[in-house]
Amino acid sequence: MNHSDDSFALHTDKYQINMTQAYWQDNMHNRKAIFEVYFRKLPFQNGYAVFAGLERVIRYLKDFRFSESDLVFLQEEGYSEQYLQYLKSLRFSGKLLSMKEGELVFANEPIMRIEAPLAEAQLIETAILNIVNFQTLIATKASRIKQVVGDDKTMEFGTRRAQEMDAAIWGTRAAYLAGFEATSNVRAGKLFGIPVSGTHAHAMVQAYRDEYQAFRKYAETHKDCVFLVDTYDTLKSGVPTAIKVAKEFGDRINFNGIRLDSGDLAYLSKEARKMLDDAGFKNTKIYASNDLDEQTILNLKAQGAKIDVWGIGTKLITAYDQPALGAVYKLISIEDENGEMVDTIKISSNPEKISTPGRKRVFRIINKTNNKSEGDYIALEHEEPEKDERLHMFHPVHTYIAKFVTNFEARELHQPIFIDGELVYKLPTLHDIRAFVKENLNVLWEEYRRTLNPAEYPVNLSQKCWDNKMERIAEIREKVAEAIEA
Amino acid sequence: MNHSDDSFALHTDKYQINMTQAYWQDNMHNRKAIFEVYFRKLPFQNGYAVFAGLERVIRYLKDFRFSESDLVFLQEEGYSEQYLQYLKSLRFSGKLLSMKEGELVFANEPIMRIEAPLAEAQLIETAILNIVNFQTLIATKASRIKQVVGDDKTMEFGTRRAQEMDAAIWGTRAAYLAGFEATSNVRAGKLFGIPVSGTHAHAMVQAYRDEYQAFRKYAETHKDCVFLVDTYDTLKSGVPTAIKVAKEFGDRINFNGIRLDSGDLAYLSKEARKMLDDAGFKNTKIYASNDLDEQTILNLKAQGAKIDVWGIGTKLITAYDQPALGAVYKLISIEDENGEMVDTIKISSNPEKISTPGRKRVFRIINKTNNKSEGDYIALEHEEPEKDERLHMFHPVHTYIAKFVTNFEARELHQPIFIDGELVYKLPTLHDIRAFVKENLNVLWEEYRRTLNPAEYPVNLSQKCWDNKMERIAEIREKVAEAIEA
Repeated sequence: MNHSDDSFALHTDKYQINMTQAYWQDNMHNRKAIFEVYFRKLPFQNGYAVFAGLERVIRYLKDFRFSESDLVFLQEEGYSEQYLQYLKSLRFSGKLLSMKEGELVFANEPIMRIEAPLAEAQLIETAILNIVNFQTLIATKASRIKQVVGDDKTMEFGTRRAQEMDAAIWGTRAAYLAGFEATSNVRAGKLFGIPVSGTHAHAMVQAYRDEYQAFRKYAETHKDCVFLVDTYDTLKSGVPTAIKVAKEFGDRINFNGIRLDSGDLAYLSKEARKMLDDAGFKNTKIYASNDLDEQTILNLKAQGAKIDVWGIGTKLITAYDQPALGAVYKLISIEDENGEMVDTIKISSNPEKISTPGRKRVFRIINKTNNKSEGDYIALEHEEPEKDERLHMFHPVHTYIAKFVTNFEARELHQPIFIDGELVYKLPTLHDIRAFVKENLNVLWEEYRRTLNPAEYPVNLSQKCWDNKMERIAEIREKVAEAIEA
Repeated sequence: MNHSDDSFALHTDKYQINMTQAYWQDNMHNRKAIFEVYFRKLPFQNGYAVFAGLERVIRYLKDFRFSESDLVFLQEEGYSEQYLQYLKSLRFSGKLLSMKEGELVFANEPIMRIEAPLAEAQLIETAILNIVNFQTLIATKASRIKQVVGDDKTMEFGTRRAQEMDAAIWGTRAAYLAGFEATSNVRAGKLFGIPVSGTHAHAMVQAYRDEYQAFRKYAETHKDCVFLVDTYDTLKSGVPTAIKVAKEFGDRINFNGIRLDSGDLAYLSKEARKMLDDAGFKNTKIYASNDLDEQTILNLKAQGAKIDVWGIGTKLITAYDQPALGAVYKLISIEDENGEMVDTIKISSNPEKISTPGRKRVFRIINKTNNKSEGDYIALEHEEPEKDERLHMFHPVHTYIAKFVTNFEARELHQPIFIDGELVYKLPTLHDIRAFVKENLNVLWEEYRRTLNPAEYPVNLSQKCWDNKMERIAEIREKVAEAIEA
């Protein structure tokens, strides 16, 4: 049970180990393979997603190796000594292209591209998806919440409801990256430099069995005070007691706020605001928490709730209304027996599951006249849409929905992260990533940013990319027909 | 960013550190405090929950200490040197009582009871809830799925969609504990001894650009074969090719199964079953996966789908339809300035949020005539319901719903885990926990086990426990009234 040398190399599905074994035995394992990471549907019916997860993917790839206990376990599982010897020496030696963290990403466009020996590319699939799916989901959820709060502050409070420890830590990083201002998780503060926030809980009032005592004791040890006022009775006891203590302590404390954590937040906040104002504490903020998300916040605001700071827990950290993003990892091209790269496709009776073959570049097409995006444009590797005068953009399914764009900048979204197994990318600070998210959102028309029924952002294929896909589909159909006749 | 001595002591909400500071400064920190962990509502509208998480809680408490980098960070956050000295020496020195993993648990009954110096008990709250909430949620979801599959096998396949890495690992352990037979996650196999399962993915078919080649290559390296048949066309290509390869390899492989991962699983499985049977492979199983959960499985079974093994991913590992359990951690009793224990309560304008004060024991009341449970019975510490001839059980809200039970066994559900900071409990094997879950389910009437609209299992308070709660509520009401008059 105790494996002090536990590594993440085994954090993968068994079939990856089995397939790799078949490749290795067939001497296929070093053929160059190209995989892409993408999702087919935006989460929360949102108009965009915010990519997150690159930092942890980088750590994972840098450290990728099978540890002693990993190899012992695989031996017990029956894998051959020679195969284990091969695995033992394995490191990530390939190339990773990726969008930057904080990039806006849409359905059916590659977030990452992995070019590596087939075996390596296969073994890393599961962990990469595990990381990217969750972190992107939470960054997107956080961004939705930011869309409705306006200039109010938002704080991530969800650790106790997070899906285990990693989710708490990396989830709060994703939320901060997407615009949240603080977290309650102290470890996340230490690890990532996120501002940490929190004052006291109901337990402290209970421990003193008296709100007045509890608030006083807190004020004696903490200059900045936000009193939790709903342990017994918010308006009859909590708020008046907070005001009383604040008056008593005067300049010795900063009476920054009161926090409401239950009951009718609209009503209570309005009443509490009046009480605070009447007592002269016009700058004292009202914090609220209790199963909040973008829907409840929107409704509270519509009701004129007087809430200044939003503490968001469960609904954010678990992405409650859609707790999984479905990013996949698909083989799009592979070296054949003659050393040529051949594009590959996955057909499915679910049409949206058909992949787009070939090595591709992704561009955001920015209209220079208004600095807004016209959509994203996916071209084959050798194409140079950035040099076009007039770009033909058309819908990849309903191809008659089309437009020509001129006077544009084509901003390429992929960055080289690893080349030949070497990390060539310098991670920006979280501060820079936050600024980057804001810039990116400014490029989107408002219609893509609204939280309900946003317009569909165009993600188009170049003509060549589209033709290539159709040809590969025809090829497969032919092959299947032959197989049936045989 | 790199903190090699990272500990989980900071995996807590900042308010815990702040409150503890106030306690410490007020010399309250060593007062004995008693907290209980419980949830207010069963997840998924299920009739019971399966408790999981104790193993990780034990590890966490055993290792609890602030590391060097933790203390450096807290210093940067402005905490005083003396307070940090105090934290540095802190270990868990208290008592933990807990239900065993695999115990069935219901709303509003204590899963765990922590008795420790106030400071310690406060600091560990967040991590304990983080662990217990998630693992119990997944164990419960897995148990629901087991209720509908009957004797079919179930495998956990969700790592790529899990909410980060810990969720994948601990989630699959929770699923296995509750009755799943295997996982795809190799690391979980290594860490917990869970059987690991998996064969190959679509990528392998694509890598060979030919199903026939891919299946042959797999068969050459693996005795046990389950072929994934939906890369191109399940019935026209996948299944016939699998049969062809199986015939060619004969006894050299075990043609254990085919796997369907997309399309109409009811139709495809029935057709594939016929094809396999006609080819003489009557023992070859059909595996299915693709966003399955207890609802889809129930429907597939109703349609006569011929599926033998269920691969469950996203919907299980994220508890998709309810991705958080709301267990809380409430102070129920605390030592006063005279060294006496005083019961405490949390009142709320949400009535279901009112806690039940006092140190309590939880019993499962088993009727000896049929070996079925009559419900759970929560008594105050000093009561001995196990010695009663005739137990008066009544609903804690609708008190007129009542019954008398005779000829019963009162099985106490809490086990001592830590005493004076020493671990006194030997963790059972996962194998034993699985058997324990089965035994526990056998004690429940079927009406509590069904997945839709189960009957409400009685969780009753003893008369003394109920009276104590009412007295504490009256006390608080009095106190609030006094405060208003003052």
